[in-house]
Amino acid sequence: MPQQINVGLIGYKFMGKAHSQAFRDVPFYFPDVKLSPVMKAICGRDEKGVREAQGQFGWQEYELDYRKLIERQDIGLIDIATGNNVHAEMAVAAAQAGKHIYCEKPLAMNVEEARRMVDAVKKAGVINMVNFNYRAVPAIKFARQLIDEGVIGRVFHWRGFYLQDWIIDPGFPLVWRLEGDKAGSGSHGDLAAHLIDLAHYLVGDIDEVSGLQETFVKQRPKLAATTGGLTAAASAEMGEVTVDDASLFLAKFKNGAVGTFEATRFAAGHRNGNMFEINGEKGSIRFNVERMNEIEFYDHTDPGDRQGFRVIAATEGAHPWMGAWWPPAHIIGWAQTFTHQVYELLNGIAGNTCPHPNFEDGLKCQMVLEAVTRSARTREWVKLDSI
Amino acid sequence: MPQQINVGLIGYKFMGKAHSQAFRDVPFYFPDVKLSPVMKAICGRDEKGVREAQGQFGWQEYELDYRKLIERQDIGLIDIATGNNVHAEMAVAAAQAGKHIYCEKPLAMNVEEARRMVDAVKKAGVINMVNFNYRAVPAIKFARQLIDEGVIGRVFHWRGFYLQDWIIDPGFPLVWRLEGDKAGSGSHGDLAAHLIDLAHYLVGDIDEVSGLQETFVKQRPKLAATTGGLTAAASAEMGEVTVDDASLFLAKFKNGAVGTFEATRFAAGHRNGNMFEINGEKGSIRFNVERMNEIEFYDHTDPGDRQGFRVIAATEGAHPWMGAWWPPAHIIGWAQTFTHQVYELLNGIAGNTCPHPNFEDGLKCQMVLEAVTRSARTREWVKLDSI
Amino acid sequence: MPQQINVGLIGYKFMGKAHSQAFRDVPFYFPDVKLSPVMKAICGRDEKGVREAQGQFGWQEYELDYRKLIERQDIGLIDIATGNNVHAEMAVAAAQAGKHIYCEKPLAMNVEEARRMVDAVKKAGVINMVNFNYRAVPAIKFARQLIDEGVIGRVFHWRGFYLQDWIIDPGFPLVWRLEGDKAGSGSHGDLAAHLIDLAHYLVGDIDEVSGLQETFVKQRPKLAATTGGLTAAASAEMGEVTVDDASLFLAKFKNGAVGTFEATRFAAGHRNGNMFEINGEKGSIRFNVERMNEIEFYDHTDPGDRQGFRVIAATEGAHPWMGAWWPPAHIIGWAQTFTHQVYELLNGIAGNTCPHPNFEDGLKCQMVLEAVTRSARTREWVKLDSI
Amino acid sequence: MPQQINVGLIGYKFMGKAHSQAFRDVPFYFPDVKLSPVMKAICGRDEKGVREAQGQFGWQEYELDYRKLIERQDIGLIDIATGNNVHAEMAVAAAQAGKHIYCEKPLAMNVEEARRMVDAVKKAGVINMVNFNYRAVPAIKFARQLIDEGVIGRVFHWRGFYLQDWIIDPGFPLVWRLEGDKAGSGSHGDLAAHLIDLAHYLVGDIDEVSGLQETFVKQRPKLAATTGGLTAAASAEMGEVTVDDASLFLAKFKNGAVGTFEATRFAAGHRNGNMFEINGEKGSIRFNVERMNEIEFYDHTDPGDRQGFRVIAATEGAHPWMGAWWPPAHIIGWAQTFTHQVYELLNGIAGNTCPHPNFEDGLKCQMVLEAVTRSARTREWVKLDSI
Repeated sequence: MPQQINVGLIGYKFMGKAHSQAFRDVPFYFPDVKLSPVMKAICGRDEKGVREAQGQFGWQEYELDYRKLIERQDIGLIDIATGNNVHAEMAVAAAQAGKHIYCEKPLAMNVEEARRMVDAVKKAGVINMVNFNYRAVPAIKFARQLIDEGVIGRVFHWRGFYLQDWIIDPGFPLVWRLEGDKAGSGSHGDLAAHLIDLAHYLVGDIDEVSGLQETFVKQRPKLAATTGGLTAAASAEMGEVTVDDASLFLAKFKNGAVGTFEATRFAAGHRNGNMFEINGEKGSIRFNVERMNEIEFYDHTDPGDRQGFRVIAATEGAHPWMGAWWPPAHIIGWAQTFTHQVYELLNGIAGNTCPHPNFEDGLKCQMVLEAVTRSARTREWVKLDSI
Repeated sequence: MPQQINVGLIGYKFMGKAHSQAFRDVPFYFPDVKLSPVMKAICGRDEKGVREAQGQFGWQEYELDYRKLIERQDIGLIDIATGNNVHAEMAVAAAQAGKHIYCEKPLAMNVEEARRMVDAVKKAGVINMVNFNYRAVPAIKFARQLIDEGVIGRVFHWRGFYLQDWIIDPGFPLVWRLEGDKAGSGSHGDLAAHLIDLAHYLVGDIDEVSGLQETFVKQRPKLAATTGGLTAAASAEMGEVTVDDASLFLAKFKNGAVGTFEATRFAAGHRNGNMFEINGEKGSIRFNVERMNEIEFYDHTDPGDRQGFRVIAATEGAHPWMGAWWPPAHIIGWAQTFTHQVYELLNGIAGNTCPHPNFEDGLKCQMVLEAVTRSARTREWVKLDSI
Repeated sequence: MPQQINVGLIGYKFMGKAHSQAFRDVPFYFPDVKLSPVMKAICGRDEKGVREAQGQFGWQEYELDYRKLIERQDIGLIDIATGNNVHAEMAVAAAQAGKHIYCEKPLAMNVEEARRMVDAVKKAGVINMVNFNYRAVPAIKFARQLIDEGVIGRVFHWRGFYLQDWIIDPGFPLVWRLEGDKAGSGSHGDLAAHLIDLAHYLVGDIDEVSGLQETFVKQRPKLAATTGGLTAAASAEMGEVTVDDASLFLAKFKNGAVGTFEATRFAAGHRNGNMFEINGEKGSIRFNVERMNEIEFYDHTDPGDRQGFRVIAATEGAHPWMGAWWPPAHIIGWAQTFTHQVYELLNGIAGNTCPHPNFEDGLKCQMVLEAVTRSARTREWVKLDSI
Repeated sequence: MPQQINVGLIGYKFMGKAHSQAFRDVPFYFPDVKLSPVMKAICGRDEKGVREAQGQFGWQEYELDYRKLIERQDIGLIDIATGNNVHAEMAVAAAQAGKHIYCEKPLAMNVEEARRMVDAVKKAGVINMVNFNYRAVPAIKFARQLIDEGVIGRVFHWRGFYLQDWIIDPGFPLVWRLEGDKAGSGSHGDLAAHLIDLAHYLVGDIDEVSGLQETFVKQRPKLAATTGGLTAAASAEMGEVTVDDASLFLAKFKNGAVGTFEATRFAAGHRNGNMFEINGEKGSIRFNVERMNEIEFYDHTDPGDRQGFRVIAATEGAHPWMGAWWPPAHIIGWAQTFTHQVYELLNGIAGNTCPHPNFEDGLKCQMVLEAVTRSARTREWVKLDSI
């Protein structure tokens, strides 16, 4: 029997649900996990909502004040699945209380916050992870393995897009994700952040960027008073959209590769199209999260008359994490990536080694986000060194 | 709070695990379920194995004798996730004990057994379901809705293939699925059964069939004594393969459509390729379980210069069951189809109405299986009326 | 400078145009051809039509009577691009006159005619070719090369479909292709014939078949008197459809492989979908003529974690015939397959060796067509030996 | 009978061949063309080569000096299919001699040259066309029609890539396309030029750009003395690569759309991948020239549960130019786009109206090319107004 750790989760909506199922599922699918999670308490400010979530998601208790949760002696791991604008205060408090931390992405609202968070976890010596969950897609970790083995050789190009289409309608109301003070940014921190983390993971560090940000619909109806839960009704009053609808940038990597990045919520036909392609001297790799069980691989060393992108189903026992699930070709879903993240985190805590992506990875991502935003404003290339 | 029902599961390997997660997940994702399952007892003959499964999968108790499980007063629902050759005796006993039943597919070893099972559940008046889980793929239920609405009109063609490739190597040993007395048949009952059930669901009843069955590798190494768990080691001794490697047939449906069916374990490149296409007078639909979150739809009534198969991500809240999971384009995996089945079953028990696919659907499938086998043997067309 | 041969073409509509461009294009793209074609005379019964075609397509003269064309001393090669019901009389006459022959597919209306044609060309010792033009798709010839090299090993499965959708509308009139006395059969001779020839080319000889043929729309409006050229207007009077709308069959090949064949004009969404897949012990190959510059290849000997169907653009200089056209990835069209056929034919005449597919290949195809039709009628498996 | 025009072609290699077949094919496929081309003379400096081309491609005569060709009274149309560095002098001379002009792309080496060319044709009042042949892909012209009809509404995003992989090997020698003084630029003028022209055609005018250019392999073996024809052998001596290997840029369009452009010869797996996607408020369109007979269209106004990208085969009679070729789904090849261009050019000359893309379109493209190059050098956004 592995040792146990009590978990306290802050947040109980979309992300709270996704994190909850991961803690539930780890012992079911990964009985070899080195530390077993106990779903001790879930925390939120609305008592009715958090109580319902506690029952449905299987938490033993609930709390209404995150500070109280963090102070509890029995809690060993704090999971922050809240809006971006409170990550920093919560994480710093949790670190100061000596808790290990699992934090939703993007890590923070800005570099300054992220730096404080990194400082806090370093000082406290706690294990920390930021939930860039796409690193936990088996196909993507497999891509990383191919790259590490040198299968595609020196990398020339990164081409990454995160395309969504949920706010094309100008009548869609001004939800919190479209307000700068709550979300920090729009598609930039929400979507481009994922691309940046994947580029860091698969290609390497970025040297400089030139960016462009655009808000296509500059005013939207404010939320109606009747809005609640997952509803988002429009009122008659209009308000300013204070985040970007689309964020595009060019990048030079330190290893000489060049990159194209694009994040948008205005690409009709793409619900959640997180896709990239990497071109190297010996081959190419491409991926789209809408078909996340597949990875495409082109081997430039195949005989000339039989080269072609091959569609690999990354569902074999030999692919990362897949042995824990089902026989080959029985696909897993999006939520299962959270299970992989939590599995790695728990093993990290058990072994006292900080897994990736951790707060330092989150800070590195935040620095690129900030460099792009500065570049879009100054209309100049911005070096990462200057951030 | 919904009422509860105690569940007893027989079988604890691949299918036992898949069924277990479904019972666990229903209350998490479908809090509106009308009857809440209690994972009371799991049953198997090997105490070590079943005890481990009990712990890992979250069952309260375990049993070693299925008859004892069935006799328990506290159990309301028996779940049969065992090999095909014991479905009939278990299901008949469960029905006689007044238990509701959830049974793996194919329903039975032959039509005679299936008929006895149908008689038993009818006589006992218990709710019953056979686990043709592909009916619980949202994309497939959505296809059925389109067909019901008349969107593709009169159907002309069904073209269904279930292609796998796991026994191409002649050195792969003689596992139970390749022994006629344990499996009943090979690709026929394992794979063609799924195609037949889907054709029944989406096109209608079959009138007559002409079949061909082939065993490409007629002898294989027997299993080594050291084989256990999921390993399947080969010994030096050879044994006869007594099931089909591939099963193909043509069919005429009662509504005038014609069909092509093919099931094989010798189609290199297809791990679990359950795919079909339906052509109607107003449109076509196609599907492949390896991309089970998508359905392709061709609308023949679109303007002539802009007709084409469109790839629909069946991940919207408007698609069957998907509102319970995640936002659009966040895909679900293969295992989640079991959750849908169990959800429908529990609601059926609560409402005292037998859901589909039930034992009668299982019998209808078994009749087609038998007609094809007879046709392959007699080399003549076989009418379903004659079975 | 290569020697020359004078060509006489019978037929000036769709196929006459396709053959004309091939004779024109061979010297342009294949200056190495061993015999240079002179477009001497085109022949048809309607003087206005044939005169126009002569001018547009670049023939030196025209004839109104095919017998006169065949008798001309200056003509060395007769090209038969007419309806199926006159192939036999024309080809036999041409052979008796000592002319080499290029004949559209299917070779004849039935096996008896095809046998007479083979006898005639053999007796006369003339070079002959039947225009199964898909053998001249570079991707398909490349597939044959892979198979010949043993790249996919022993073949288990052929799965071939030729799907069209041009007569789904029951108001579409009774054109000659729907009249048995003019067309011989419907989708069977028009589409299944291509599949059979490709199966012969890529897999081998067929041993026996079990078939099913269906006419979904049994009556259609007769052609209006005003119909002419490519128009096909409907009159108010109805007539019987005397050919099959769809033809399906199962086959056993002499080498132990099994096959599924399906030809239909009722598959909405498929304009000209000639597609097949071949599964062997070491790999699989698949193809669709709507993407005829591509071939998909699955290598079962790749490492287990990186197997997948790869899409090969068969447009490299190393692929058959492609060196004559453009640089890699500059695709060719459907018509260019005719150029390849004519190139092979002219080289065959120059070298006095009969290329493939020739009249014997055409006869072999005709025998399978007849076996399937007989099987569909008798509802029994039919051995090719019995034809 | 249409009137005739005598054509003189300069250049007899890859592009000379492609232009030749277009002039040959127009009367065959488009008998309605309003002016019939006579292939009067082909011109090149190497007598042996040009004489061979004259015979193979079907030109009546040959010339060795382009000035002489231009001076000939019988020539009405000059076709410039030479290297980029002589377009300007040839076109200006041809215009001064009163000839209509068909010129390969990119129009010139720089904006200054392009401006002189535009001035010359304007002053002379001759019809002119620049051969951005992708505008003559039926699928692309159809995309333009959809956009003109408002089918996708206001455009938000252009995402265009032209990916090739032919110089990844650092041992590939220093051919003329890699020398700045002969080619002007690398992937930029060769590939990005096509993207820019398509963006102009489909989205509209560009306002400003921020670019990045990279040369991954900075030195290559010089060409061997033995190099000739299409061979490109490497010598032992190294030389500087003086053009870009890759060119990337961001753009703002005047209508508010934003764009990503990328051209490279280092994208393994892409032989000739000219692809784009356009996202608008009512739908999206995407295209890849490797499947140039298809266009993908997403209709955001479809019912929510049945939206998806549909693959339209742009091979119907209703699609631009396709009625001239073959029945639906009989695809055309890359070379046929030249036939469409020449058809439009000849009709333009007959009707005395300048077709698109003409020299002014070529100049507009050249201005964007120059703006990007300047931006890559100055590391600033460059306004098109400043060029």
